[in-house]
Formats: sequence, structure tokens, C-alpha cells
Amino acid sequence: MGGDFGPRSIVQACIASLSATPSLHLTLVGQPSLLEELIASHPAVDRARLTVTAARETISMDDKPATALRGKPDSSMRVALELLRDGKVQACVSAGNTGALMALSRHVLKTLPGIDRPAMVAAIPTQKGYCQLLDLGANVDCTAEHLFQFAVMGSVAAEALGVTRPRVALLNIGTEDIKGNQQVKLAATLLQGARGLNYIGFVEGDGLYRGEADVVVCDGFVGNILLKSSEGLATMIATRIEALFKQNLVSRVVGALALPLMRRLQADLAPARHNGASFLGLQGIVVKSHGSAGVQGFQSAIARALIEIQENLPQRLRGRLEDLLP
Amino acid sequence: MGGDFGPRSIVQACIASLSATPSLHLTLVGQPSLLEELIASHPAVDRARLTVTAARETISMDDKPATALRGKPDSSMRVALELLRDGKVQACVSAGNTGALMALSRHVLKTLPGIDRPAMVAAIPTQKGYCQLLDLGANVDCTAEHLFQFAVMGSVAAEALGVTRPRVALLNIGTEDIKGNQQVKLAATLLQGARGLNYIGFVEGDGLYRGEADVVVCDGFVGNILLKSSEGLATMIATRIEALFKQNLVSRVVGALALPLMRRLQADLAPARHNGASFLGLQGIVVKSHGSAGVQGFQSAIARALIEIQENLPQRLRGRLEDLLP
Repeated sequence: MGGDFGPRSIVQACIASLSATPSLHLTLVGQPSLLEELIASHPAVDRARLTVTAARETISMDDKPATALRGKPDSSMRVALELLRDGKVQACVSAGNTGALMALSRHVLKTLPGIDRPAMVAAIPTQKGYCQLLDLGANVDCTAEHLFQFAVMGSVAAEALGVTRPRVALLNIGTEDIKGNQQVKLAATLLQGARGLNYIGFVEGDGLYRGEADVVVCDGFVGNILLKSSEGLATMIATRIEALFKQNLVSRVVGALALPLMRRLQADLAPARHNGASFLGLQGIVVKSHGSAGVQGFQSAIARALIEIQENLPQRLRGRLEDLLP
Repeated sequence: MGGDFGPRSIVQACIASLSATPSLHLTLVGQPSLLEELIASHPAVDRARLTVTAARETISMDDKPATALRGKPDSSMRVALELLRDGKVQACVSAGNTGALMALSRHVLKTLPGIDRPAMVAAIPTQKGYCQLLDLGANVDCTAEHLFQFAVMGSVAAEALGVTRPRVALLNIGTEDIKGNQQVKLAATLLQGARGLNYIGFVEGDGLYRGEADVVVCDGFVGNILLKSSEGLATMIATRIEALFKQNLVSRVVGALALPLMRRLQADLAPARHNGASFLGLQGIVVKSHGSAGVQGFQSAIARALIEIQENLPQRLRGRLEDLLP
């Protein structure tokens, strides 16, 4: 029921995902009449693979996590997570209120043993490919132990996505040992002693985009600011390029020729909009699609959930945590 | 003596600034023989406006602030700051080690009454013009009181640069009151009660680039990560655009046509390289030019110092602090 474009674009994304992946089954959770109406406009859909589960309430973008937890026992978000907890589905994908989704996920699914707080991770494009950046805003104040847990989770997630011996780094304002705040310095000490983790040290903001690490760890305040400012900057650059190209006849012609190139670039540079962000550290797979992602974005979020199911990410994470955590 | 390109490009920038501004006098501080040799290759320069002051030592980029403070009593950086403290010059511009420059500035010049820690500020381009972002890395752990002081200093700096009633915002991970860490929430309370300050609330990373505020306040850890990741992203985008344009014959032709447009954009988007960053809150004007700025960048840093001299920024700041601080 969530997302800036509402269930219409989510249903569209689901229909597209079902045709792309013949083994996929989807359950839509929300107001049945509305969902059935939206599905009805796609008569070719295989209804054996697309079911609807009723939920009377909806969590709005303005609802506080506490309201989601205590005030709406039959919200679509909660019902979806309960289906996951009860083994009726293998992953939950939502485009709704992030804070509510995190609070409900922790409450309904619980964290893995050894994990205090789940983290939110997304793939960020770099000069050399992608890096997994976490936390993206779920945890504002983090201790060194939390950052250590994020590093372990990010490393396992990167492995699941196909990276061999992922290079794990802490985001910092310099690469020397003396740089940074207490949490970061202490987390570095913890990570230096961790067996089986390819910890490479500190990385700076520009080093992240140069592709110096496969996993970049920071607290949720810093990660959220980095992600949103990057999105804002990418949008500003796109706007300026358009404006430059419109200035005179020559640049208009150049601009018209360059347009398809620019479109590809823009799509590549808005990863959080286009790919989902995963919640790591829960006893279950939860993927958050960007609220303004649209059809394509929600489809990518479903695809990320599929990979995590195939790779059995929570179970892999559980095994690695048993090895690594004290 | 500092900067990635050394004194050669600094001397070049000085010569260019002297011809651009007939009222400007410059004093170069460092190894006299080297500096005189570099000046000698510009025979047209008006030596009445370009003097040299000797300093035997140089602070390297790897020197710790403690080394700068205690181990090198005759460093070019320290001697330049002492000239400023003694009223022999009106501002100090350096492309050297940032941490050393900040430590020496505090030690030699002292902070203004009411300021615990100086902050580093730079103008960041936005969709609507520029915003002053501070702190950029001088203060890693900040209390709410520090953030409040940064807000006051940023507002006065924006006014000096020509902005009427600058909109001051705190950088946060959401715009609702409940969002953020303790320091940010407490700083919001302090700012809401400040007379004569146009505090507009929280701004997010994307809001900064949308131009929602004229002054954006954060701790030095967050500001440094934001600034460097923005530089890294802008570089990555420029690299990708170049690569896109090289793919085939059509895109090569488009790329050749678009090149001058792209160059202008790149120049506009690397503000920290192109404009200097000011240290605010000191009893004197200190501008830090980016180490890799080159001739143009150092010239811009000198231009920023000139504006701050004309606007008598430290004195304005002192007056405003007396009005605003408890």
C-alpha cells in the first residue's frame, strides 16, 4: 500500500516481475478490493502465482514508528511481516515508511543472535563497480560494536552478491590512525582483530566513489547524509547539464544527440532509487524500495529479495556471526 | 610552501591576483632563495606590492598538529600567522596541512570571545546558488553549543558574502522534530530561541543541493564526509560522461561538441577546489586553499580573503556573538 505512487505502480512492478521470473510467487498485502481492481487491468497475469492477503489498515508516511507498532495491529506492513515470520513467504518488500518498516521488522522478525540492531544497506555505484554502504539511517548513534556488526553483515551481503573476499572499510575523515571520532577508532581496533574479514582500514568520502572498498561502514546519520546528498548532487548535475544544453542552437543540437547517453548515466547514478535497500541482521529478508522509485525501482527491489532468498542470506549471516562474534 | 603543486603555482596565483587587484599587497612566507627565484621568472611584477618574509621550516602534509605546534617554531605557516597576529598583514592564505593550519591558527590568533572552536566553512553550489557549509572537518565531535556557534558564524559569513537574512538550517536525516541525534535536536532548541537569526529548521542531504538553505550546519565528521563524497561523485560522473562519449563514432562527435559545456560544469562543481575554505571564529582571517587547487584555486582563496577583509568579518562576528551568545 506504500510508496509515493501507491499500489498502482507496485502492482505493475509485480506483474512485470512475475513474467520475468517464472518461479516467482507474489502475495500482495493490503485492501483486497483495491488490489483486485488493479490486478484486473492485467488480464494475462497467472493468478496461481499472484495472491492477495487482506489487511485493513495502512501505515502512512507520517506515522511514527510507535504508531506502527502499537496503534495499527492490522496494517499491511505488519501482516506482510507476519506472513514472513510464519514461513508463508520467503521475503518482504515494501515501499512504505522506512522507520515504521524497521520498527515492525525488529518487533515481528527479531534480530539474529549477536546483532543488536539491524542495518540498512544499499549498493552505491563507484568508479570500479558497486560498494555496499551501511548503515543508511536506521541507527543514528552507533557504538564501535555496532559498527563492527555492520562490517560483518556488509561483508556477508557483498559475498552473497558475488564479491570474493570483499574489502571492508570504515568511512572516516582521513586514512591515518589518529583520524576520526572515538567510535570509528575503536571499531578499527575491533576489525583489525577479526579473523576471516578482509578489513582494509579507513576510506574517505572520495575514496568510496573511487571504488577503494566493496563494503563501507558508517553510522546511520553519516550514511543517510551521504546517500541523500549524493542523490541531490546527481540530480543537480543532471539539471545543470540539461540547462547547459538548452543555451543556444549548437548546444541544443548537441544536447538532443547526447540525451540518450545522459539518460543511461542518470539511471546508473540513482542506485537507491533503482535498487532496493536491504535490512540486514533480521531473522528474515526485508527489502525497502525507495518511496519515489516507481515501477522499475520496485521491480529491482523484488529482484534483490530474490537474490537474498537464493543465497539464503539470513542463514549465511547467522553462521558467520557465530564464527566472528565473541 | 604548501599545496600539492608547491610554491611555483602559489607564486603564479599571487602574480595573477596582484594584476587583478591594484590595491592588493602580498607577502610570501617561506624559503627566500626559492621564492625569489620563482618571482624572478615574472619580471613585470610590481615588487612594491610583493614582499618575501623568511621562514626556515616547512610543515609537511604528514606532520601531526602537535609537531606543527611544538616541533617547528619557524615554520612558514606559523610565521605567516604571526604576521597576521602582529597586524603586519590583514589575512593569511595557505594551501598546506589543514590540521596544522587549524592548530596553529588557534594557538597564534586565539578564538573570538564566546567561540570554543573555530570552524571551517566553504561555499557549496546548489540548484539556487551557493550555501555555506560548516564545519568541514576541524571539529569531529561537536556539542549542541558548538553547532549553535557554527550557525551564528555561518550566518554572519553569508551576510558578508551578500546574502540578506541568510536561511540557517541544521543538517539532519529528516525534517521532523524527532529525527536526528541528541546534539542536533538540542542545537535545534537553542537555534529556535536565538534572536536575529533566520533559523529555518532541519535540511536533508538532498535539500542542501536543492538550495533550501543559505547556511547548513553540521559537525566536522559529517561535513567532511559530505564534501569529499560530493567531490568524489562529481569526479565519477565526469569520468563516466567522458567514457560514454567515447563509445562510438556518433558519441565521439557529440562528446567533442559537448566538451566546452562539460568543462564549465566541472569547474562549477568543484567549489572546494576552486574557492577557498575559511576558518571562522578566530581573531583574524585565515583562508585554506585546497591542496590540489592549482593556480586558479589559490587565486580564489586570495579573493575570498579580500572579501573578508573588506567586510571586516572577524569584527562583525565579534559584534554578533556579543548580541547572541549567553
